[in-house]
Amino acid sequence: MTVDLVKMGQAAKKASYELGQLSTDEKNQALLKMAEALQDKAAEIMEANALDLDQAKKADLKASFVDRLVLDEGRIEGMAAGLRQIAGLEDPIGQVDRAWVNYAGLEISQRRVPLGVIGIIYEARPNVTVDATGLCFKAGNAVMLRGGKEALRTNIKLVEILRSVLTKLGINPDAVQILTETSHELANEFMALTGYLDVLIPRGSARLIKAVVANAKVPVIETGAGNCHIYVDATADLEMAAAIVYNAKVQRPSVCNATEKLLVHQDVAAEFLPLLAAKLAQASVELRGDEQACQILGSSCKAATAADWDTEYNDYILAIKVVSSLDQAIDHINAHNTKHSEAIITNDYNNSQAFLDRIDAAAVYVNASTRFTDGGEFGFGAEIGISTQKLHARGPMGLRELTSTKYVIRGTGQVRK
Amino acid sequence: MTVDLVKMGQAAKKASYELGQLSTDEKNQALLKMAEALQDKAAEIMEANALDLDQAKKADLKASFVDRLVLDEGRIEGMAAGLRQIAGLEDPIGQVDRAWVNYAGLEISQRRVPLGVIGIIYEARPNVTVDATGLCFKAGNAVMLRGGKEALRTNIKLVEILRSVLTKLGINPDAVQILTETSHELANEFMALTGYLDVLIPRGSARLIKAVVANAKVPVIETGAGNCHIYVDATADLEMAAAIVYNAKVQRPSVCNATEKLLVHQDVAAEFLPLLAAKLAQASVELRGDEQACQILGSSCKAATAADWDTEYNDYILAIKVVSSLDQAIDHINAHNTKHSEAIITNDYNNSQAFLDRIDAAAVYVNASTRFTDGGEFGFGAEIGISTQKLHARGPMGLRELTSTKYVIRGTGQVRK
Repeated sequence: MTVDLVKMGQAAKKASYELGQLSTDEKNQALLKMAEALQDKAAEIMEANALDLDQAKKADLKASFVDRLVLDEGRIEGMAAGLRQIAGLEDPIGQVDRAWVNYAGLEISQRRVPLGVIGIIYEARPNVTVDATGLCFKAGNAVMLRGGKEALRTNIKLVEILRSVLTKLGINPDAVQILTETSHELANEFMALTGYLDVLIPRGSARLIKAVVANAKVPVIETGAGNCHIYVDATADLEMAAAIVYNAKVQRPSVCNATEKLLVHQDVAAEFLPLLAAKLAQASVELRGDEQACQILGSSCKAATAADWDTEYNDYILAIKVVSSLDQAIDHINAHNTKHSEAIITNDYNNSQAFLDRIDAAAVYVNASTRFTDGGEFGFGAEIGISTQKLHARGPMGLRELTSTKYVIRGTGQVRK
Repeated sequence: MTVDLVKMGQAAKKASYELGQLSTDEKNQALLKMAEALQDKAAEIMEANALDLDQAKKADLKASFVDRLVLDEGRIEGMAAGLRQIAGLEDPIGQVDRAWVNYAGLEISQRRVPLGVIGIIYEARPNVTVDATGLCFKAGNAVMLRGGKEALRTNIKLVEILRSVLTKLGINPDAVQILTETSHELANEFMALTGYLDVLIPRGSARLIKAVVANAKVPVIETGAGNCHIYVDATADLEMAAAIVYNAKVQRPSVCNATEKLLVHQDVAAEFLPLLAAKLAQASVELRGDEQACQILGSSCKAATAADWDTEYNDYILAIKVVSSLDQAIDHINAHNTKHSEAIITNDYNNSQAFLDRIDAAAVYVNASTRFTDGGEFGFGAEIGISTQKLHARGPMGLRELTSTKYVIRGTGQVRK
């Protein structure tokens, strides 16, 4: 292999120590200059991108795949705008989470510091190259990028531009590095780069994430999979429930916070399901139901199989189950969800509290669409992904989630007794 | 294998959901009852312990090993006192880290929740069985324990007692489970129990921790290794420096926050080292120095080898290096430390700030002993270990570090646009 990962890792570590000492202003200036450079060099980027596109077309890749690969002026502007937005976000580095004086008179403070070196593994989406770099950089971290092979030429050009901006500003360009080879062997070596990678974040399909979680030797933040549920309680405002389910299913079905499953209380199923089905029919949503749901809906509903309850469709499909109680709904969700986002539609106060308390998920909702689980919607400004694990970060991850802490302790000669 | 880990994991998961709903009072009552039960059943515990001790003696295990295995009335009282102390600590569960209303009028709050199911892998120290269970329980987590084989009978008895208290109080006893087999195959299966174990915390020797980090498929919190440094700057108060180095080296050399390395500025080395050596001689500390240090100290100093700079002695040994600048000290520490605890002794303000800013470690000190890196000393009341990784928790881990968060979102029918 021509790529020396250990050497890259050492360079990244060194750069990360330097990045950690930059002021917020210095980082913001760099981000704005990166944005400018991307727009200035749009022609070069599109030239590199054309080579990737040629190859993708020759390889007869799916149109939707090729579409995500394309960079035109508009998309390059979009990437630049993303960097400018990140420049405008609050810098978490140096913030103090808590500070106190201990019994011995030591001043102890817990200070936000960068994680260090962050690895990103992603698919053939060049925007991730810029977006992930911007977020990691703003939080003072070096990045090592491993993108999909189909976008390699585009990614190399993007990284070249970003690095040249850093060099011009006197910042160590090894803050941004890309693996210029995309073999599986090298990817596996990358996932085992302990001592250099402080964390690895996979961004992309469930398959990619699963592979990374299974193979990585370095700490991973698991993102993405979303088998999200909405439970319509007996006391729900059924118009509101239909509007929320419609939004959560149809507004953007391909994403992880889209709802995949509907649970409905038996007392309102007969009234609610036909109302909902009529609405979902406008978007040609396929319905798969348990026995009771199919009885109510008739031919517009297919029979769901056991596998349906654990499947994230990312498509215009909704599986429906009729339940006899809130308890049954909660137990079903905790048994089948991916710990992402879950909602109850209800007007019963106790039920709303029980649902919020007892559902095990990154985000639990009362009377709102699961589609709000997103860094932008939450007000974080941007996100690197949505964590579905419980360690370190849970839910939408913004800049703060790309940091760690250290204890800073000032004494006057204290020794331990 | 007679132990069915998946079944245990399912039971633990179920218990964890129930534990997460207990009030602080219910958890505290249970901890106090556990303490009482340990003291009431001291005779039974010592009986089981005697069987372990017999076997350990027959196996001709080291005296220090056997000593850590022994449970007498005093130690059982100590374990009970530990549980009572945990009952007195603030409960992190239900605390809200932040709360706000987003642009769409959703009330969003980030609430502390238990991690879920915590696995603990440890050596033949029965006190860990009780201590780890107490901390995990108070933070609303179920535990699955895998202790050293030499303490198996003692551990089984302890867990039996703790579980019977839970049963009597109407709490699901599967909140506390122990692996009753200690084969390596089962340990490996345990470390790969994804879907049930939310996190695995190894407690014990560097070798154990390394093995767990290398083999685990579930998220691990790495604890423990401490190659800690003290840097004595040119402007240090040398009496203070000697007192701090003495304390950090000698007060308890076997622990991870003991100092292993001394860096000293060349301008004060000739004055400081003999002063320090005389003091350390009182505790028969072996000195290993670089060329300059050995020149100053003469025959009381052995030549250090390259390996010394990366070795955690956990013993009465100190390696000494003379440096020409603060930068050299910082670079040496960042290259050789285990990211645990590092101190500068100085009276130079700028140097103190540079050291705090640039050293990469869980705890960085000015003018104090590294021995303070400890949950008790920090004021956390108790600790489950000291994390040397950057994800999730860094430094002493108290109850708060045994929790995760979830976003609780209350709406009035909001859908995403």
